[in-house]
Amino acid sequence: MTTLDSHPVLQALLERHSTGPKHLIEPGPSDAELHTLTEAALRAPDHAALVPFRFSAVRGDARTRLASLFEQAACAAGKDAAGAALDRERALNAPVTLAVIARLDLGHPQVPAHEQWACVGGAVAYLLLAAKAMGYGAKMLSGAKARSPVLTSAFCESGETLVGWIAIGTPTLGGRAKHGKPPADEVLTFWS
Amino acid sequence: MTTLDSHPVLQALLERHSTGPKHLIEPGPSDAELHTLTEAALRAPDHAALVPFRFSAVRGDARTRLASLFEQAACAAGKDAAGAALDRERALNAPVTLAVIARLDLGHPQVPAHEQWACVGGAVAYLLLAAKAMGYGAKMLSGAKARSPVLTSAFCESGETLVGWIAIGTPTLGGRAKHGKPPADEVLTFWS
Repeated sequence: MTTLDSHPVLQALLERHSTGPKHLIEPGPSDAELHTLTEAALRAPDHAALVPFRFSAVRGDARTRLASLFEQAACAAGKDAAGAALDRERALNAPVTLAVIARLDLGHPQVPAHEQWACVGGAVAYLLLAAKAMGYGAKMLSGAKARSPVLTSAFCESGETLVGWIAIGTPTLGGRAKHGKPPADEVLTFWS
Repeated sequence: MTTLDSHPVLQALLERHSTGPKHLIEPGPSDAELHTLTEAALRAPDHAALVPFRFSAVRGDARTRLASLFEQAACAAGKDAAGAALDRERALNAPVTLAVIARLDLGHPQVPAHEQWACVGGAVAYLLLAAKAMGYGAKMLSGAKARSPVLTSAFCESGETLVGWIAIGTPTLGGRAKHGKPPADEVLTFWS
């Protein structure tokens, strides 16, 4: 039997939770730490080593430009001034925001698209856990603005898909894993 | 700056690697450990908490039945007797084989299919890391047999997709992370 106390990795996994940008302050990860986070993401299972993802880091002054694009996208989606201002804040609050960009090989003979999407998700999951291990809070953000033309054209090359953004910074609150998930019994059955 | 020595979680992530079924022996995870592995999978980022996956564990005598289905699928795919025998062995070698089954909500108003596939991938990634933390070796297996009618009908309900299998057991070799991946510099750029 496994006891959690002696397994820091299991403990970190079972306590993994998101920290939204409104609960993030400076400092965020350094450029060297962002490289380490990317290396953790590259350890996700990746059939045929296609690396169907890349990250684009927004930090420092670039956040102001991202905030303007978030605001434009909100206005284009019909949000009112207060809603657009909230979206603007989302880009400014987090010390670092990493755009997650998928670059799938849709004609690959062995690896169907859904496996490549799964690899993107594994990369995000490992990056979030690594950020937490460094002491940062982080959250994956998506929603309608990931499909907004003003944002996809700012981040994506032809054939790429903007998945969303990972906000990373120093958490202002401890937070804890949500327990709204189904029990493992609902998700795990035994085949016979 | 982060040093790895003081960060067991970062170290585990950066050293994460797969161990194929031919390098796995008894014992495999107990039923209680399989529950803990499932709980780790449930901590993957999951927009709107859809839990778009489930696992079906094959262990004990059920492995013989899985081996027969692997063999049938190989024959149906045109493999010769030696190839079919190899596929049969794959099911018998691992003490536990977890089928990974996706159950997407394709009509969800907020969460596109690709985000749900990413969640499935995050779940697999966390489960593999948790297995390694318990001292087991593991590998995600997919390929043509995941699309074989004989196997999809054995594991899936209507509307579900068989993603593949995770083989788990005690590793017979230490193994190490492959370094065929691109450097982080190719995957991480800075937006301005």
